[in-house]
Amino acid sequence: MSLVVVGSIAFDSVETPFGARERMLGGSAVHFSLAASFFSDVRVVGPVGDDFGDDEYAVLQARGVDTSDIERRPGETFFWAGRYEEDLNTRVTEETRLGVFEDFRPKLSAESRSAEIAFLGNIQPELQRDVRAQCTGAQLVALDSMNLWIDTARESLVAAIREVDVIVMDEVEVRMLTGESNLLRAAREVMALGPHTVVAKQGDHGVSLYREDEFFALPAFPLETVSDPTGAGDCFAGGFLGSLAAAGSGADGAALRRATAYGSVLGSFCVEEFGTERLQRLTREEIDERYAELQRMTALEAAPA
Amino acid sequence: MSLVVVGSIAFDSVETPFGARERMLGGSAVHFSLAASFFSDVRVVGPVGDDFGDDEYAVLQARGVDTSDIERRPGETFFWAGRYEEDLNTRVTEETRLGVFEDFRPKLSAESRSAEIAFLGNIQPELQRDVRAQCTGAQLVALDSMNLWIDTARESLVAAIREVDVIVMDEVEVRMLTGESNLLRAAREVMALGPHTVVAKQGDHGVSLYREDEFFALPAFPLETVSDPTGAGDCFAGGFLGSLAAAGSGADGAALRRATAYGSVLGSFCVEEFGTERLQRLTREEIDERYAELQRMTALEAAPA
Repeated sequence: MSLVVVGSIAFDSVETPFGARERMLGGSAVHFSLAASFFSDVRVVGPVGDDFGDDEYAVLQARGVDTSDIERRPGETFFWAGRYEEDLNTRVTEETRLGVFEDFRPKLSAESRSAEIAFLGNIQPELQRDVRAQCTGAQLVALDSMNLWIDTARESLVAAIREVDVIVMDEVEVRMLTGESNLLRAAREVMALGPHTVVAKQGDHGVSLYREDEFFALPAFPLETVSDPTGAGDCFAGGFLGSLAAAGSGADGAALRRATAYGSVLGSFCVEEFGTERLQRLTREEIDERYAELQRMTALEAAPA
Repeated sequence: MSLVVVGSIAFDSVETPFGARERMLGGSAVHFSLAASFFSDVRVVGPVGDDFGDDEYAVLQARGVDTSDIERRPGETFFWAGRYEEDLNTRVTEETRLGVFEDFRPKLSAESRSAEIAFLGNIQPELQRDVRAQCTGAQLVALDSMNLWIDTARESLVAAIREVDVIVMDEVEVRMLTGESNLLRAAREVMALGPHTVVAKQGDHGVSLYREDEFFALPAFPLETVSDPTGAGDCFAGGFLGSLAAAGSGADGAALRRATAYGSVLGSFCVEEFGTERLQRLTREEIDERYAELQRMTALEAAPA
């Protein structure tokens, strides 16, 4: 199955306790599509400015990502600068310049409209709804969001959530959205809006997947070195939906669990280095090795009879 | 194998968003021994005052816990009063009265000294060391501790840790003890002191187990209702060590994983009601059912070839 992602394409300047980088290629659509590219065809939709050059296109194209729906416009590419505190859980935004993102109105090509799986990255909820309406061929649409939109565009976000199948959000934001501190109850409240699946990303605590009749959870792959958490959630979503796209239309419970594990694996590689550095030289063999390790690490035998 | 626990025996007054109770039977040794009693013989060591009556003994004895090493002294039983905030993660202590605990010096009977597994509940580290020295028959000694002792008795705590095999502590306190925010590195620092196993309790995020050559993690059993988190960590430890005691001296990696899962299951039952209410009427069948559910919930198939 084919996959389309709409989200930010950005330059990120990031400082963490382990180093700093200026104007790296980043953004939710970039991280997502690099991660998904290990599993399926992926088309990326989003705006860039005239500072977005061949080197940036080349990073995506080297992984086979279809960039023909990237809209190049006069102006500056979305820019974000931030730093992480010592424990990497606190992120401080130092600068955000929307640039060409400010008046972005996504226009999907016929190929993107017919993709069977669509991911609405973390952008303004009305844009997500606009894209959702254009994805006429999608059998499965997933959505991410964040505290900013819960605070400033709550009604639009709830309307967007009603129109999708899968929610992939940080657990803190699932709780914030519902006002329910118990995550199981919060996930059920989100499912009552329409989505059949809620995936709650829990950072270094792993990920939990909720469906009406199923619960699945995985710890994060244990890492001794986390250089830069930026993009981990989008790489999770890319691995998750990429794996589902590869599994095809008959994706069952086991395929969803595998997709969750592949998402975790991609997120874990992402944070080992800055920005897209690690994913640019990642191989499918490394992914499968880590998947197998994660499977061994979480295997629990039945109780003795 | 037989099991001995040294820790607090208490009356707890607890208020949570879901209710309140006055002077319930509680304390680390009580929660631990009730949980462990589903798996093995367990002896409890600790002081009580003359306000500790037949009803309290009866709760332990109904589960077959050997109470002959409970030391009854003139004065008041340890008393704790506290409340939990809305999200249940913030605990505010409102009153602590040490009572007979103030000048408690544990004296283990010959039977307790010869127990093969010992658990040093969260008490003053010098008392833990004193008990450790008395446990001459122990093949495996585990220890819990808390922020209070890291702050006020750090050197004693490190000395106590050097003398045990297994650490069972909250992840926040493992990080605090080592000053290392990465939990894998923090666990390695603790193992470098001597223990071969570090179990980091992560509350509603589950539990992670670290050994030199192994990592295992489990999500918490998902619960829609958490009434009172008090005692969850001690019930985890009781289920964990009780299960290891039942597995006998040949406990291998698979037995450690099963023990971790049994610990999680016991912790999950504990928090469903207040204090020891749920464990008092818990059955082994319910435990095994939930274990099987947890196993199903975490099962991940290998990747397709």
